[in-house]
Amino acid sequence: MRPLRADARDNRARILTAAEEVFGQSPNASTDEVAKLADVGIATVFRHFPTKAELLEAVLTVRLERLRDRAIELAGHDDPGAAFFAFFDQVVAEAASKLAIADALGAAGSSAGADAREAGAGMREAFGNLLARAQRGGQVRADAAFPEVYALLIGASRGATAARLEPEVRDRMLALLYGGLRTRA
Amino acid sequence: MRPLRADARDNRARILTAAEEVFGQSPNASTDEVAKLADVGIATVFRHFPTKAELLEAVLTVRLERLRDRAIELAGHDDPGAAFFAFFDQVVAEAASKLAIADALGAAGSSAGADAREAGAGMREAFGNLLARAQRGGQVRADAAFPEVYALLIGASRGATAARLEPEVRDRMLALLYGGLRTRA
Repeated sequence: MRPLRADARDNRARILTAAEEVFGQSPNASTDEVAKLADVGIATVFRHFPTKAELLEAVLTVRLERLRDRAIELAGHDDPGAAFFAFFDQVVAEAASKLAIADALGAAGSSAGADAREAGAGMREAFGNLLARAQRGGQVRADAAFPEVYALLIGASRGATAARLEPEVRDRMLALLYGGLRTRA
Repeated sequence: MRPLRADARDNRARILTAAEEVFGQSPNASTDEVAKLADVGIATVFRHFPTKAELLEAVLTVRLERLRDRAIELAGHDDPGAAFFAFFDQVVAEAASKLAIADALGAAGSSAGADAREAGAGMREAFGNLLARAQRGGQVRADAAFPEVYALLIGASRGATAARLEPEVRDRMLALLYGGLRTRA
């Protein structure tokens, strides 16, 4: 990719912020609505993102990178159990819009490309690190292996989204789930 | 609906069985493939189900009714805790094809109609009954309310499907989740 001039960089960032908002609300929204919210012309959107699929993937990548960075930051937390569950909370709470974007990408005839896949792998690695720390700290069951804990994270996220859970129900669902993950007192 | 003659009823049942198999494998499969597997002409399929959406909904309804009947049957089981977890297991294990059909219905431009909604409500009621019995039996935490337990069921189903989990990982995921639902020894 060619380096972008400062104003082009600003436009790109504005378009991504607007797209996250617009597609988070409705995955079937049009690129036109993104241009309006970003206050740029539609031609500018297409110059940065020639297809809707490319725009959706860029939004998904940004979200995954942000979650990865949050997991890395939480790995420095004093209480590894609290850090692990705080990250789990955040992923599930954010899932509605993140999954809507992933679904929209599927509907746009493209599954996640290299950038989103790399960001996803980085997020999983950082989550695995939080899990390992919480297990070493004795706060999460040592016999819970990564694949099934990650499956619970995905499942809780999808359950919260599919059932459009009220935040109170979501929190009680997570409390039950965390009861299974925590070591017994 | 007009009563069907015996051979028409047989054709309808054969089409539904074939459709469950074909759309369970791939929600984007064509009605033509269903006709071939059912060994009937495509005109016969369209006579029973004028649109793909109607065929998909009939398949989804049959599956939900079957799960509801299974939950009702399990409610007669001696061990209400074992009955509750056996039903949970079965829903999650079957989720891959059931969800594929629900997704296909969405993609066909129609969300579940009255028949599927009624079957879904019957299934939820029967599941709620299994939960109440397991709680009265002291095997499931009494403070777990239906909405969050149902959200866990949906979440575990979607997690197993989205991540295409190996059966072993699925079982370990459920073991963690059940640890959170069970009363403490």
